[in-house]
Amino acid sequence: MASLSLPLNKTMIQYHIPSTLIPLNSSKTLFPGYQNLSIVTKTSTTTTIPFKTTCKSSSVSRAETLLSPDHLDGAHDHDDHDFNHHDHHDNQTALVYHEDDRPLSQIWREIQGANDWEGLLDPLNSHLRTEIIRYGEFAQACYDSFDFDPHSRYCGTCKYQGAHFFERLDMAHRGYDISRYLYATSNINLPNFFQRSKMSSVWSTHANWMGYVAVSTDESEVARLGRRDILIAWRGTVTYLEWICDLKDILRPAEFGPDPTVKMESGFYDLYTKKERGCKYCSFSAREQVLAEVKRLLEYYEGEEISITVTGHSLGAALALISAYDIAEVGLNDAVGRPTIPVTVYSFAGPRVGNLKFKERCDELGVKVLRLVNVHDVVPNVPGIIANEKLDQFQKYIEEAISFPWSYAHVGVELPLDHTQSPFLKPTKDPGSAHNLEAHLHLVDGYHGKGRKFRLVTKRDIALVNKNCDLLRGEYGVPPNWRQDENKGMVRNSDGRWVLPERPRLEGHPPDMAVHLEKVLNYVNESSSGSQQLGTT
Amino acid sequence: MASLSLPLNKTMIQYHIPSTLIPLNSSKTLFPGYQNLSIVTKTSTTTTIPFKTTCKSSSVSRAETLLSPDHLDGAHDHDDHDFNHHDHHDNQTALVYHEDDRPLSQIWREIQGANDWEGLLDPLNSHLRTEIIRYGEFAQACYDSFDFDPHSRYCGTCKYQGAHFFERLDMAHRGYDISRYLYATSNINLPNFFQRSKMSSVWSTHANWMGYVAVSTDESEVARLGRRDILIAWRGTVTYLEWICDLKDILRPAEFGPDPTVKMESGFYDLYTKKERGCKYCSFSAREQVLAEVKRLLEYYEGEEISITVTGHSLGAALALISAYDIAEVGLNDAVGRPTIPVTVYSFAGPRVGNLKFKERCDELGVKVLRLVNVHDVVPNVPGIIANEKLDQFQKYIEEAISFPWSYAHVGVELPLDHTQSPFLKPTKDPGSAHNLEAHLHLVDGYHGKGRKFRLVTKRDIALVNKNCDLLRGEYGVPPNWRQDENKGMVRNSDGRWVLPERPRLEGHPPDMAVHLEKVLNYVNESSSGSQQLGTT
Repeated sequence: MASLSLPLNKTMIQYHIPSTLIPLNSSKTLFPGYQNLSIVTKTSTTTTIPFKTTCKSSSVSRAETLLSPDHLDGAHDHDDHDFNHHDHHDNQTALVYHEDDRPLSQIWREIQGANDWEGLLDPLNSHLRTEIIRYGEFAQACYDSFDFDPHSRYCGTCKYQGAHFFERLDMAHRGYDISRYLYATSNINLPNFFQRSKMSSVWSTHANWMGYVAVSTDESEVARLGRRDILIAWRGTVTYLEWICDLKDILRPAEFGPDPTVKMESGFYDLYTKKERGCKYCSFSAREQVLAEVKRLLEYYEGEEISITVTGHSLGAALALISAYDIAEVGLNDAVGRPTIPVTVYSFAGPRVGNLKFKERCDELGVKVLRLVNVHDVVPNVPGIIANEKLDQFQKYIEEAISFPWSYAHVGVELPLDHTQSPFLKPTKDPGSAHNLEAHLHLVDGYHGKGRKFRLVTKRDIALVNKNCDLLRGEYGVPPNWRQDENKGMVRNSDGRWVLPERPRLEGHPPDMAVHLEKVLNYVNESSSGSQQLGTT
Repeated sequence: MASLSLPLNKTMIQYHIPSTLIPLNSSKTLFPGYQNLSIVTKTSTTTTIPFKTTCKSSSVSRAETLLSPDHLDGAHDHDDHDFNHHDHHDNQTALVYHEDDRPLSQIWREIQGANDWEGLLDPLNSHLRTEIIRYGEFAQACYDSFDFDPHSRYCGTCKYQGAHFFERLDMAHRGYDISRYLYATSNINLPNFFQRSKMSSVWSTHANWMGYVAVSTDESEVARLGRRDILIAWRGTVTYLEWICDLKDILRPAEFGPDPTVKMESGFYDLYTKKERGCKYCSFSAREQVLAEVKRLLEYYEGEEISITVTGHSLGAALALISAYDIAEVGLNDAVGRPTIPVTVYSFAGPRVGNLKFKERCDELGVKVLRLVNVHDVVPNVPGIIANEKLDQFQKYIEEAISFPWSYAHVGVELPLDHTQSPFLKPTKDPGSAHNLEAHLHLVDGYHGKGRKFRLVTKRDIALVNKNCDLLRGEYGVPPNWRQDENKGMVRNSDGRWVLPERPRLEGHPPDMAVHLEKVLNYVNESSSGSQQLGTT
């Protein structure tokens, strides 16, 4: 099953383009798959709306109305969750919140976890808070754009074309552009994860859209960030947790590096590495897609200061960690003659992924992982309920001495949230609500540190919480599960009939993908013993 | 409880306007409650889209694709449901369909039931078919515009202002304008019918929007119809049938005319006659609202040839029959010195309403009722499961001799439909689907007469069937229950926050309502013994 070389021979014959013919640093060819792309060229430096907008009286008025004591239970007084935290000094709670005045561009390495977020979590650093929310919203974009409707023949794909992705999601001002979409084959054993259309005529019988690679293209945003940011966002599931039951918890060698004792859950491994020869969207594995694209972008932006940030929620968080590890293990971020590119994972409500050896290897490679979890969420407890990092030294023993095959360890630094601490949320025990990504972002907004009172900071809209769940308290007047398309996407055609409009064919793999993938392969072969593989069939 | 005079004294003092001051036939004052109204002035005579559009190849192509034999079960061959029925002569089924060449303007009285639809039902007359569908779509408009969402503080009202009602529903070309909205108090014993908001701050705690009065204002449509049409449409429920269980099946005297043995179901009676003094929308009863408005319009259009058409689905069909009977019983349609104005009811999936005496009185008054029913629908069988019109002469006996109090009789002419006869629909036994109004309209479109094969005629869009149910066969690719608002009506305000926008306050009662209601009262007192009442408190 496992192969040691890239199964690309045929494709390479078709698509082989001498690298000398690929113009570098030309905006024309940056996004070959997205011809309609209009590069955003902002002149203003105002960015990261809504969490950096200045407080206008009109926007506060609603908050103040909402936050009147009448609307809240007796345990929370008005001051506890006033948006205008600057105006209050709450001696009882010893709130030490302050705004980090240093520009992000100066301290971005620290914010990205260079020092394992030492000193940034308690109290939570203001830059880190906005960065967590910003990357979380990039992960949320995967849900807001995904077609979950099994009655749609586009079920399982992205509703928007790459060139219009951020625009359609009101995120054009974020200063990023999609550089490619990521797909995985659904022909693996995760029946409760993949969305399948009930229709007989569908866009693809094998593929599911799994996320995207994007890059910060707006120069004012690049200046604000202090570096060019290559972003990888992976889709998970919005609320349904049934896929957990599909996980067999069986560890298998990762095989991305030379050490066969580095292992990961076999379902995640399959999702990341499997492909379907006959499928336009998954003739390359998700792994091949992401590695080739990262390689391409690194070449394109050669000489610039770069970060690689990977994000995802739920199963998407697992893929985020795996792909971040992969990039580092293959060494894409560590080319000879240039400084190592930091690889950071913002993981939301993620399950465990691999064994203790996997965790140690991630640490060794310098992959930085910040894990945002809700303590009431069940997903971060799987797999590895029997043996996990909480066993401490004993885990090392059972892995090494007795090769216990169901031992899992979380990677990175945990930031524990608690939805019962937010006076805006119902103290529900519903597992789907506790797992919800928007709820996590709301909790980050009000988090200040262990034992510190919940207090919103960024004026992030609380209504977003209820997009796909019923978690906001009723007094805020926000309908539950309100995110939906008008008439489920049905529109009247020129004859007055209601139809689901044809969507433009989504791009498959970019024509130069094989070229870049070959470079990855060469890179791998040059820099290691050659024991790696890039995909299984 | 019952009062013999109009409880209007206070209101009349406030609003009394000498009738000489009310300009007649002035478009400025036709719709006093709807100042934003733009009178539709069409120059084209093309009307009644989509059911009279000519067949374009592009619109047929979908039908042909859908109707390929592969998509249908073996029991139905392609010819059975081809839209282009003119091109086929199906000898086996002896289809005698032909288009009635006479213009509607010449035969409208016959189509409205002057001869009890004698000779028009089997085979179904082409004008009658389009008229049934046209009026059914006016009834459907009550659902398409109603806010059913209990998480909305506008739950129980109409989403659109009257002046924009038909425009927002893509029905502006129908040539009608809303002249007033109808409300009823929800403080009666039908807990499963009324929509109540879960919010603490709501538009009204007492009222539910119940439909509208409209009038044909476009002169080309008036010419096509052959008369000015006053239309009353009553809202029912889309699919939920729980309100049936609320009906106590207790008959009570109608009291609209002199005969106390004319009785109707007490829940319907309450819905039609109850009011709430303190409520802006139901300080007048539905009965008072509709009578006053009809009176006003009849005065406004004095001298013109007029029809009164009442339509409704489900519980709305009950209200349609009651209000039609009321108008005729009060004699509004039968003024001295002018020809009697025909009163017609297009009733869809309606329950029984009154006793045999009620039926006989309707017949006597010349109220014409065409009852469209799906034979699989349970609603037309209630109330009166024990004793109904099927008992024939025995019913007369039990009503008159033993005053049996649970004896109900349908009024008018039945047109029985059967959703299992349409090859487009699933042969479901789901009660909600069998009761669905859009399904009825689809069935009318393909109905030709008893024992005749189902064959669509008007090119009415089959996708409409699935608006609020899951009845279309899967191969047509139409999502079930597809009618929904984008993001449940949430929009981003100028601060970027998601909110349910404020809706303009809906009009309460027009200021001149008391004037017209007084005229109805005078009219009643002059023309009868004065034993009637117009409302209960």
